[in-house]
Amino acid sequence: MSRRQLHLNVNILHSGFSPAAWRMEGSDPRASFDINHYIKVAKIAERGTFDAVFLADQAAISDRIDFRPLTSLEPTIVLALVAANTDRIGLIGTASTTYNEPYNIARRFATLDHASGGRAGWNIVTSADLAQSRNFGLEKPVAHASRYERAGEFTAVVKALWDSWEEEAFVGDVATGRFVDPGRVHPIAHSGKHFSVHGPHNIPRPPQGHPVLVQAGGSDDGRELAAEHAEAVFSASQSFEESLDYARDLRRRAARYGRSENGILVLAGLATIIGSTEAEARRRQEELRDLIPLEYSLARLAGVLQVNPKRLELDRPLPDDIPLPADGGHTFFRATLALARRHGLTVRGLIRALNGGTGHRTIVGTPAAVADDIETWFSAGAADGFNLMPDVLPHGLEVFVDEVVPLLRRRGLFRREYTGHTLRDHLGLSRPHNPYASAAE
Amino acid sequence: MSRRQLHLNVNILHSGFSPAAWRMEGSDPRASFDINHYIKVAKIAERGTFDAVFLADQAAISDRIDFRPLTSLEPTIVLALVAANTDRIGLIGTASTTYNEPYNIARRFATLDHASGGRAGWNIVTSADLAQSRNFGLEKPVAHASRYERAGEFTAVVKALWDSWEEEAFVGDVATGRFVDPGRVHPIAHSGKHFSVHGPHNIPRPPQGHPVLVQAGGSDDGRELAAEHAEAVFSASQSFEESLDYARDLRRRAARYGRSENGILVLAGLATIIGSTEAEARRRQEELRDLIPLEYSLARLAGVLQVNPKRLELDRPLPDDIPLPADGGHTFFRATLALARRHGLTVRGLIRALNGGTGHRTIVGTPAAVADDIETWFSAGAADGFNLMPDVLPHGLEVFVDEVVPLLRRRGLFRREYTGHTLRDHLGLSRPHNPYASAAE
Repeated sequence: MSRRQLHLNVNILHSGFSPAAWRMEGSDPRASFDINHYIKVAKIAERGTFDAVFLADQAAISDRIDFRPLTSLEPTIVLALVAANTDRIGLIGTASTTYNEPYNIARRFATLDHASGGRAGWNIVTSADLAQSRNFGLEKPVAHASRYERAGEFTAVVKALWDSWEEEAFVGDVATGRFVDPGRVHPIAHSGKHFSVHGPHNIPRPPQGHPVLVQAGGSDDGRELAAEHAEAVFSASQSFEESLDYARDLRRRAARYGRSENGILVLAGLATIIGSTEAEARRRQEELRDLIPLEYSLARLAGVLQVNPKRLELDRPLPDDIPLPADGGHTFFRATLALARRHGLTVRGLIRALNGGTGHRTIVGTPAAVADDIETWFSAGAADGFNLMPDVLPHGLEVFVDEVVPLLRRRGLFRREYTGHTLRDHLGLSRPHNPYASAAE
Repeated sequence: MSRRQLHLNVNILHSGFSPAAWRMEGSDPRASFDINHYIKVAKIAERGTFDAVFLADQAAISDRIDFRPLTSLEPTIVLALVAANTDRIGLIGTASTTYNEPYNIARRFATLDHASGGRAGWNIVTSADLAQSRNFGLEKPVAHASRYERAGEFTAVVKALWDSWEEEAFVGDVATGRFVDPGRVHPIAHSGKHFSVHGPHNIPRPPQGHPVLVQAGGSDDGRELAAEHAEAVFSASQSFEESLDYARDLRRRAARYGRSENGILVLAGLATIIGSTEAEARRRQEELRDLIPLEYSLARLAGVLQVNPKRLELDRPLPDDIPLPADGGHTFFRATLALARRHGLTVRGLIRALNGGTGHRTIVGTPAAVADDIETWFSAGAADGFNLMPDVLPHGLEVFVDEVVPLLRRRGLFRREYTGHTLRDHLGLSRPHNPYASAAE
């Protein structure tokens, strides 16, 4: 077995990444609202010794719910029930720094970490879209730079709260009646531009020290936030070279924050459509495509590109003058535009190429082809692992676990069993040092 | 069996209501931080066919953690794990309207309701204390009237979000590809003094319509909030007459909001210390008292009364000039002061009378005495049920379930088995009508 280990995470995009996933035979249309669906998917991932399951989040309806499931149930609650039904797999949930308070987020993820025996991860997002802003008293989204400035301060406050209890703060001495040593529980007395938080936290330091910090920084500000704080990043690179560049750039930036190369893992987004033969995989792809109403695909593309749907003509290329948003556009905006330009695609071709996906790279093929692709990327350092988005859930994950995982194991790339208990153990990430511990040493 | 049914709820005050609970033989000092403790207590309550378990919340350290466990883990996450480990029991969690956003709270409790099959309840609090305010950017707590004004608007927004999906909004028609009927999902377009929330919610209407709304309104503003919105109230009445007056006042107020008498249940706080004989119960009370450091009791009393601890002399009455806070003082402030004045207690006597408790009424006696007390209050309408605070957890609850519950059942006061599945079923509360349903009818 090679020393460097591949990491696999499954993005439980409700019924699957395909907008038509819920219509496929064997799918339960109601799955996205059913806690048992998330538990079932997580158990399959755990059987495949995955590092973690991941849940995105939106505090709004931001897609066309007439056509497809939406991001709905609140992730930390869902993951708490997943924790109760699994033993080892990591639990990564999304929460926005724009529409939450740091004390509340620190508590939610610390609680999940305590309750799961150290399996929690927090995916930090800044929530760019209009629909969310209007649910929180704003008529338009907070500007990009301001969101990331707030996110940086927010994350620093959360980490300080997690560190505010020294490891030895809990005493619990029945004889003397000393419960906690208050000298080892410290106010953080944070006073910054966006937040004033006195602290201390009211929860002992989480089992992992900090729940694992995850981010999906694509923009310059996003990469800086990831470089300073993230321990795993979800990337949306479309090509091998792009991903290699991204990984190098991120590690370079992280080094400027005094962080080690191994302290930040790149998990590349990978949508999968798997068949027992290449032809079968292609047929499956066509079947899924045919189930996506064209009206939906056009509306969705127009939404991603922030243009009027009427400007998109099916058999012509994208208009030349799609304006780059003032904030540089979010990751999927840029990925989608790049995909169209690179291959000179018509709107119809772009819709086909996107596979109804979210701008992430899609691989269509046999288990061996998927394993080859993963090995190539992983071995060359274009990714430390993958954030998998199976076409249909749980079906696509079951196929991956039963057909692809054994190949990755035989090649010595992926664990045969869990060797640790925490998400940090799985990811090979060290436990963050508590600054108060060093003062005492 | 009488038609009117008693309701029992257990307040999982971590190790028990007694500050010394964690020091008792058989207690695990670490229990307050251990998810398995909450699950174990909930399972015992479910064995006793309790209506619900309840978790308080504080987003700060607001007690002396050198001496006793604190309110720590975030309740909705804890209750999600409890949900996964139980089948029927209701799950009531506290969240503050002062330090949260309505869209986030609507989602957390809707998710818990979906994930538990309709067992969620939200205890609405407004968070009076300084320690919390300082964790959310404020140098002092928000004023009483302003907190309650915000709480009223907050609750109305949350209810509107829960109602924003009609029952029939989900279609899930695989053949046509229609997932949701967008005509049955409505923006709430709320624009008020404290919040602007466009909506709609991104979660289908919860199984219960609304998770059960709980409140602990003691002050005039608190009673008004309860009268308008609460379906169950936790009261802190010290005497039978006080509780009878409270229940009558609350129903009178509720009627002014056009609500039915049966739509609001009074659950009286009841701390229990049970022994197989009266003498054994008294000895247990003494044992617990002796384990509470006097330094802690004095500090705690001074904190509740908001006076300098140096002004409290053990063998003298309370100072005459304890100022009533401008906001009228919170419930425990008033209950504590009333207890001291009514019986002319010295500080030492008051500390003894409080039993290290939180100002709630305490009964010390045999299972039969506890059952008699409960029957008296219940039959006369001084309470519809009780919010139990056993001295030590899980021990005190086990004794209650094994020794008191059978007596209540034999007297026809309490269910022998669950007859429904949701918390509303247990409490006999009707499912809130969806305003959009009536428009369509």
